Order: sequence, then C-alpha cells, then structure tokens
Amino acid sequence: MTISPLAPAAFPDLPIIDGVTFATAQAGVKYKNRTDVMLAVLAPGAVIAGVFTRSATRSAPVLDCQAKIDGPSDGRAAILVNSGNSNAFTGKSGALAVDALTSAVSQATGIDPMRVFTSSTGVIGEPLPYDRIVAKMDDLAAGQSATTINDAARAIMTTDTFPKGATVTVMIDGKPVKIAGIAKGSGMIAPDMATMLVYIFTDAVISHDALQSLVSLHNDVTFNCITVDSDTSTSDTLIMAATGASGVDVTDNSDFGTALGDLMRDLAHQVVRDGEGATKFVTVSVTGAASDADARLVAMATANSPLVKTAVAGEDPNWGRIVMAVGKSGAQADRDALKITLGDMVLAENGWRSPTYSETAASAYMKNSDLLIGVDLGLGRGTCTVWTCDLTHGYITINADYRS
Amino acid sequence: MTISPLAPAAFPDLPIIDGVTFATAQAGVKYKNRTDVMLAVLAPGAVIAGVFTRSATRSAPVLDCQAKIDGPSDGRAAILVNSGNSNAFTGKSGALAVDALTSAVSQATGIDPMRVFTSSTGVIGEPLPYDRIVAKMDDLAAGQSATTINDAARAIMTTDTFPKGATVTVMIDGKPVKIAGIAKGSGMIAPDMATMLVYIFTDAVISHDALQSLVSLHNDVTFNCITVDSDTSTSDTLIMAATGASGVDVTDNSDFGTALGDLMRDLAHQVVRDGEGATKFVTVSVTGAASDADARLVAMATANSPLVKTAVAGEDPNWGRIVMAVGKSGAQADRDALKITLGDMVLAENGWRSPTYSETAASAYMKNSDLLIGVDLGLGRGTCTVWTCDLTHGYITINADYRS
Repeated sequence: MTISPLAPAAFPDLPIIDGVTFATAQAGVKYKNRTDVMLAVLAPGAVIAGVFTRSATRSAPVLDCQAKIDGPSDGRAAILVNSGNSNAFTGKSGALAVDALTSAVSQATGIDPMRVFTSSTGVIGEPLPYDRIVAKMDDLAAGQSATTINDAARAIMTTDTFPKGATVTVMIDGKPVKIAGIAKGSGMIAPDMATMLVYIFTDAVISHDALQSLVSLHNDVTFNCITVDSDTSTSDTLIMAATGASGVDVTDNSDFGTALGDLMRDLAHQVVRDGEGATKFVTVSVTGAASDADARLVAMATANSPLVKTAVAGEDPNWGRIVMAVGKSGAQADRDALKITLGDMVLAENGWRSPTYSETAASAYMKNSDLLIGVDLGLGRGTCTVWTCDLTHGYITINADYRS
Repeated sequence: MTISPLAPAAFPDLPIIDGVTFATAQAGVKYKNRTDVMLAVLAPGAVIAGVFTRSATRSAPVLDCQAKIDGPSDGRAAILVNSGNSNAFTGKSGALAVDALTSAVSQATGIDPMRVFTSSTGVIGEPLPYDRIVAKMDDLAAGQSATTINDAARAIMTTDTFPKGATVTVMIDGKPVKIAGIAKGSGMIAPDMATMLVYIFTDAVISHDALQSLVSLHNDVTFNCITVDSDTSTSDTLIMAATGASGVDVTDNSDFGTALGDLMRDLAHQVVRDGEGATKFVTVSVTGAASDADARLVAMATANSPLVKTAVAGEDPNWGRIVMAVGKSGAQADRDALKITLGDMVLAENGWRSPTYSETAASAYMKNSDLLIGVDLGLGRGTCTVWTCDLTHGYITINADYRS
C-alpha cells in the first residue's frame, strides 16, 4: 500500500516508559506476513483510564473494557490488541472470545482477568478466530520488552498506511515525566467518544479519577473533533495507563494536562493524515457561533460534506459549498453576518463574495496539502475546530473493494 | 454526459393540464447550446402551494417564494425557472435580481408580481446575470404552449443526465383529474423540506389550504426521504399549482391524495436514479424502531454512510457496515434484537450473522441495479423508508471538477 502523502516524515523516537513493556506476534487473524497482535503489560498499581465509542452496536471487547475501566488498580494489568477482525456484532460468541483471550492472558502472565483489557479492530460480524491469538500467548508473555512500542504501533494497523506515535516530556518539580502514545485509524473515522484504537502510557503518578477526567477532557477536543468519513466505528477505544514509575504526582499539575492534550491532538491529526485516500489535511475552524454546540454542528457539517470534500480534492475554492454546509447544519446562522475565510483570505462576507476575493489567489492556496477553512458566524462566542481530509477516488477504491 | 444507467426507459408522455402553458429559451445564463429558462403561466384563479428548503442559507428566490406562497390566488400566476446559477448567497443583489425577474415577467404578461414565483439552480455565490433572462422574456411570454412541459423538464436540468417527469390520472365522480410533474436534481440531494426543483400541475379544483396540506404530507415521505450525498441544497423548491380546469373538486377526496403521493414518490425516485455517479438504486426500509423518528435516524445514517454506499458500489454484501450505521445513528438499538435483510435474505439476527446467511447468494443479489436493505430494530412500531444510491468514482469525478 502506498504511504499517505500526508504522513509525517518519520515515526517518532518513542521513549521507554518505565513500568510498561510490549510484545507483538503474527497470529494470522486475517493478515499474512505481518504482526497483528500486541500485548502490553503494566507494572503493579498502574492507573488505567479510557474512553470508548458510544455506538449502540459497539463491539464485545469495548463492552468488556467499559465494565472493567473503573475497577481496582492493584496488581499488574495488560492490554491485548488484535487487528484484522473487530469482534463486533458477533453475538454471544463475541463475549466468549473476549473471555477466552483474557483468560489466556491471565494464565500466561498471572494477571487478574479484571485487569486485562482487550481491543479488536477489523471486519465487523465475522467470528474472531481467537485460538490463533491464544496460541501465541506464551510467546507474547515471554517476549515482553520496554523498547517494542514501535512494533506495537505497527501490529494494530488495518487500512492505515503508516504507524502513528507521539511523545512528550514534561518537567515537573525538576523531574521529567514522559508520555508516549500510539494510535491506529484511517477509515470509519467520526469518533463519538474516542477514535479507533489509541494507547497512551505515562510514568506519572496520578489518581484514576484525575486521569479519567484529563483523558475525557482532552478527548473531547482532539479525537472527538476529527472525521474522515462521518462513519463511527463500533470499536473506538482510547486507553491511557499511568505507571507511576517517575514518582512525580501530576494530579493537580496543569502542565501535564496541557502536554497530554498536545499529544492527543498530534495522534488525532495523524489519524486524519492517514484518512483513506486523503491528499489534503483540512482544519475547519468555526467561530462566532451562538454556542459551542452550534459551532460544532457547523464544523462537522462542513468537514463531513461530500461536496466540500470533493471540492478540496479538486483543489477548487468552491466556497458556495461551505455556505451550503452552514445552511444545512441546523445551527443558527445569518447569511449577512457570515464570514468565510481560506487561510488568511476572506472569501465571503456581508452576505456575498468578498470584494477582496481573488479566484486566482484562492485557487493557488488550494494547491497546499494543509488547508485552513474558517467560518465566522458573527453571532456569538461559540467556537469549535475540527480536522478532516478530502474525499478522493482513493477512498472509493479502498472501500468498494475492502472486504470481498 | 452519459445518461445514468438507472434512468427510466423513456420520458413519460405528459398530458396537457388545462390552465397551464409553458415556454423555454436559451438565455445563456451559464450553459451554451441548450435551454436554461422556462416560464410557466397559470390561468386565473390557479391555487398554488409549495414547500422549500429549510437551509439557513437559502437562496433569494426561495425567500421570495416563501413570502408569496400563502398570498392571494386571484388572477393568473407564473413560475420562472433558470438553471446554471442558483442566486444563493448573493447578498442584497440576489433580491434585486429576483425583483428584476418578477418585474420583467409582470411587464411581459400582465401578471401581478405577487403571483410570480421564481427558482434558480446552479452554482452558489455568483451574481445571477438576470439581464440575459430578461432579454428573453417577451419570447417566453409570446411562445406559451400547453404541450411544452417536456421542454420545461429539460430547461431546468443542471448535472442531471435525464429529464424527470411523471403523470397520473384519477377518476373522481366519473371525471378524469390529471396531475403532471417535472423535477430536476442529481447532487446536493438531502432535502430538508423539498428537493431541488419540482413543479407539479393539476386541473383539480382544491383550496389553497388543502393543497398545501397534501403537498406537505406527501413531501415528508417522498422528497424528504431521498438522499444522494447528505448535502442539502440552498435552493430546494417544490411548487404545485391546481388550475381547477377539470371542474372536479378534490378537496376531500382521498384518491387524489394517494395519486399525488404516488406521483411525488415517482419523481423523487427519478432524482435518486440520476444521483451523481449512481449505478445502484437502494431502498432502505427500517421497521421495528422505538419511534418513527428513530427509524428515520437509522434509515438516513445507513443511506448516507460513505462506507455503506461504497460497499454497494463494490457489490459487496458487507452488512457489518450497516451494523455500524445503526450504531452511530443515535437511535435506540439493541444488538440482539436487530435484524438485517437484503432483498428477502436474512443477513443478521439475534446479535450475529444469520445461520441461513449465504455469502454467495448475497453477493449475487448485490449485482442487481435495484437493491432493498431492510433493518428491523425489533423494539417497537416505528418505520421509515428512504431511497438512495451508491457512492462511486463517478461522484468524485463530477464533484472534484464541477465548477473550476
């Protein structure tokens, strides 16, 4: 598969997070000749928080994670992830497969099954051949290494064209606190709580409630603000684990939260940059809305509009389609108060094309791979920024021929 | 342009509706070497009703029509429509253009400007060169003919690949009452009140209130239940005129309403059959929802899902994507109560793939050009049926290269 033209130049050099180790394996769940399972093991006392899809048809592993996420934080913990099969809409056998996998992890590692979290990503509705993963469990338990998070980022990929990672180090009381995260996601991206699969690790000391609050807070303005195709996965999962190995308590430290938010935004952007068929990375920034909720309606209507996205693909500054998206969004809007910008050019204002509008300049701007669409509704103080990509022949090719 | 593979075999033989005449002209608003304006003139006393887009950025002619639709029904009336420019988001000059056009119609025909309705369809945000239309007005007024509704259906086309018409005759008290309608629409189709442009004529006698009620009632389950691309036009307009020439009062006649509903559904289907790039006509029928509103959420989430639509384009019975759409719809759903069907085959039930599921049979069914997707939520009595098409390379080609 061709790597997305929007991919970062290189995978970042992710640091070791003391208290977490990784291993990957080729279980052959669906893909051949590549890794498709990763097992992360957390040291005793690791604090784990998460956000999950709100889909009404969410997968068996999501349901299992949700039941465990607020559980005890004693002892070690584990995160097992496979690609190639999402174990979603697989009836009672889906839950049995989750139980088989968590039992296998528990037997191989001695970890309490209530501290074993699993995720599955891939095709929906087909039985998960969990025995292939169970067969690799002893290898996964024995092969744990602190340096293989890079391999883990590759093992969880499906239609992704590049592995996604990000890291940040915050100095707190003169001591470094590290955060490292990996993500996968490319299509079926319009997260309703978290996106596809995201795993973030830190050596900070933090309470479960504080970690969960931070994750939820930043998730709302990062992963919940990206969309590739308006379709929401049945498997969206974000799990964050704090090992405490740094000895630095960050519970009331705002720098840690800010750094975490930056890292989550970075990973979210990488998911968009690997959007199926994407050739443009588009920021839609909405201001002046009657409320933040209205701003989000407008931003999402614009970012999900097939006509806006195909105009971007065609490098056509067809701002009339943005007007259309504002109009259909359901948000309060006033034609004559609306202002639409592209980069720092004003395209439309006062109910019509701006007198400063230059088709030549706007067309030239559209050649950029990173684009900024601004919509000011001129009504209030509501804002929202979302990130999306264009809709191209590549998306059709990938999705009209993905499963069969 | 290649005609849609889903087009009807032929344009129907539309009857003369006594009390309405038509003329078309080549004004060169945008297109060359084809008609792009039509003027319909209604006999004195014609009753006119309509439904219009609810877009917050609706066009100047829509705003003008909405201000007039409940006005007096004395004297003659006129409907002027141009293609090639929507006169939407054109500021104060948009309203001036509408005034110039209605004045020109009034001068050429003697019709009260309050009884002149205009529609414009095409690019958004560019000034309407109304003078080109005004220059043709005397010809349009002088060239009126009862037989040229076929020409009118062609003059209002934009990216349409075939003209759309439908007719029905109802026998009431032994007398024939005729209805004939024309429509245009192909992209930016997710009507929020009516679709693109639809004009329906009847020789029935009916009050304004009764006609408006009938139009709104049937619009809700016909044009408001189609979607090509989830994008809602700024110009959607449906106008129906009753000339009364048959002398038959249909105000309390249910046969007339049923026939009108059938005709509106026929025209709505033709719009979907001419969906940009469409190769499949898809009926999504949702039953067993907790409410009709929930059924509509599920039907629209399915019909608008890029992943469902590309699976249809790829002739792939990937019903997991339908499960995904149900899950993201926001409607109440229970995995284990859900049943998904394709034609008369059960694909999924009891929370998993049906034991009777045959991939071979399902794949064979997907080769049909007309497909029926059924979703039964198993929760209540709410139902909704919507019609859509697939998402193909053709859609990308048309819309990544439409304006520039």
